[in-house]
Amino acid sequence: MDIKPLLSHIELELQKQVSRLDQPRTKPFHEMLTYHMGWTGEGAGPEATGKRIRPLLVLLCSSACRANWELALPAAAAVELVHNFSLVHDDIQDNSPKRRRRDTTWVKWGAPMAINVGDALFVMSNQAVIDLKQNHPAEVVMKTAAILHNTCLDLTRGQFLDMSYEERTDLKVEDYWPMIAGKTAALLSACCQIGAVLGGADEEKEEAYRAFGHYLGLAFQVQDDILGIWGDEKVTGKSVASDLVEGKNSLPVLIGLGKKGKFAARWAKGSIKAEEVEEVARLLASEGGYGEAKEASIQMTDMAINSLREADPQGEAGESLFDLTNKLLNRDQ
Amino acid sequence: MDIKPLLSHIELELQKQVSRLDQPRTKPFHEMLTYHMGWTGEGAGPEATGKRIRPLLVLLCSSACRANWELALPAAAAVELVHNFSLVHDDIQDNSPKRRRRDTTWVKWGAPMAINVGDALFVMSNQAVIDLKQNHPAEVVMKTAAILHNTCLDLTRGQFLDMSYEERTDLKVEDYWPMIAGKTAALLSACCQIGAVLGGADEEKEEAYRAFGHYLGLAFQVQDDILGIWGDEKVTGKSVASDLVEGKNSLPVLIGLGKKGKFAARWAKGSIKAEEVEEVARLLASEGGYGEAKEASIQMTDMAINSLREADPQGEAGESLFDLTNKLLNRDQ
Repeated sequence: MDIKPLLSHIELELQKQVSRLDQPRTKPFHEMLTYHMGWTGEGAGPEATGKRIRPLLVLLCSSACRANWELALPAAAAVELVHNFSLVHDDIQDNSPKRRRRDTTWVKWGAPMAINVGDALFVMSNQAVIDLKQNHPAEVVMKTAAILHNTCLDLTRGQFLDMSYEERTDLKVEDYWPMIAGKTAALLSACCQIGAVLGGADEEKEEAYRAFGHYLGLAFQVQDDILGIWGDEKVTGKSVASDLVEGKNSLPVLIGLGKKGKFAARWAKGSIKAEEVEEVARLLASEGGYGEAKEASIQMTDMAINSLREADPQGEAGESLFDLTNKLLNRDQ
Repeated sequence: MDIKPLLSHIELELQKQVSRLDQPRTKPFHEMLTYHMGWTGEGAGPEATGKRIRPLLVLLCSSACRANWELALPAAAAVELVHNFSLVHDDIQDNSPKRRRRDTTWVKWGAPMAINVGDALFVMSNQAVIDLKQNHPAEVVMKTAAILHNTCLDLTRGQFLDMSYEERTDLKVEDYWPMIAGKTAALLSACCQIGAVLGGADEEKEEAYRAFGHYLGLAFQVQDDILGIWGDEKVTGKSVASDLVEGKNSLPVLIGLGKKGKFAARWAKGSIKAEEVEEVARLLASEGGYGEAKEASIQMTDMAINSLREADPQGEAGESLFDLTNKLLNRDQ
């Protein structure tokens, strides 16, 4: 399936939703949102918008249930708006100066304005869902809304765990999964489930699509963690092993800590400097951090693929879902 | 009507909604929300919860349409959760250390956590609306959701205007109304409209209830602005004229600036110190700041009362609505 028309329709729908703030007194506010979305300001363009994977999943899952993907566009916009709301707030919370190589919203307009930008994106995701009523029965719209709201609570849970882990030194691998289930897997799972719901899938299929998104999210995050330590800087676009320098509680690190070996001893001593990174990464790999994380990634990928097979996605959209999954999970960036 | 049972049911419904985070891994997160809501931690109790005016309006308007107010409880919780989400984020944005004489959430747990607390309260307001489906048709639930979402966008608009006004020195009285329409009147108007919708009001009544809430909000805010400069410290609980010291763009100040007299000249010179406050307040009053604001307050109050008469609220709840309005608008705190 040619996904280009889907991507351009996603962009148009997003712009329509965000244009709610394009009014005389709130034009500068609207501009903050269009900047963050990657449409305006320095560095605007396809590199700044992100890949729009989440809305694409909504449309492909819906189409793979043999429904018209155009009718799912407001839901596609809704999940992307949720994603972007969480990015804007995350960047403030993590004190991150850059996102997709551009200044973050709080850097440009200050944290108070950026909090409000995130809030507005969140509100618009809710409004987008309501727009579904033009083409779907009220019960279906409400079910979609309920899925999205539950997912948003999962996001705040994941974010809470992530932030509270920063101060902890006793973290175990078991602490990792609930965090990424909230931070990454919940929204991807919602995308696939919502696509299925709007596509008219029965309960069993809906559950298979949901599970597909869930494992896709887990696999994706584990792989991201691996690339954050052993990725190729030229490909990932971020300084390799920056995750080690930042002290991120990623899966390989938690595996390494569990070994109580040399890596754990070094980690306990305090932050890792850029010049040590290669050595510490090697140490972590030698103690199983790489291999076991890779194993977890393969396991989650298998579960994602199996769930997708169970969902039995139809037609060209179905093929595209398998393609997208393979691309996402065998990616080297 | 005895409003005590309504208030206790509101509190129970709010606790039920917030308990979604009362789970093994997120207990400390749940505690942040229960602290902000006034139920736990230092200073917890009726003084810390606020007056719950917004949920009360939902229930009273619904009951005044001769509906069972208990069926509107999830909506009552929803509006109060929206209000509290905006308070938590406002306190970060305004750098406010205290709220209802207690440390604000960001002071206790830091801004990153507090952003997440606000987000969670917002999510829960959405979830509460969905809970209405147990007792209302899907169309009614969706209409309620749409009203609340539009209101939330108005809140972000009002917040944007408020923050962007901080840097401006050319503000006029015309700039005041759109800001408080968003910041204060939008949510009160939504409360009354939602109460009417859930009470089964026809479109004309619904509009009358909406207008009542809108003017109630405007009148309330103007009165708050007046009390912020000329209120009795012992009654308002905040240092009198603190609004002058804080440089707040309240209605009396904007009226004063429009006169381009001595007050405007003093205001342009920079922040007002505590020891000047009495004199500057007198100056502002002598140039019309008090009288004209009072006039606006009376005008908005009349419009609120007229709208309420038009809505023709029934029974004891109707009487309570008139009582509550009088209490709110003739209050000295």
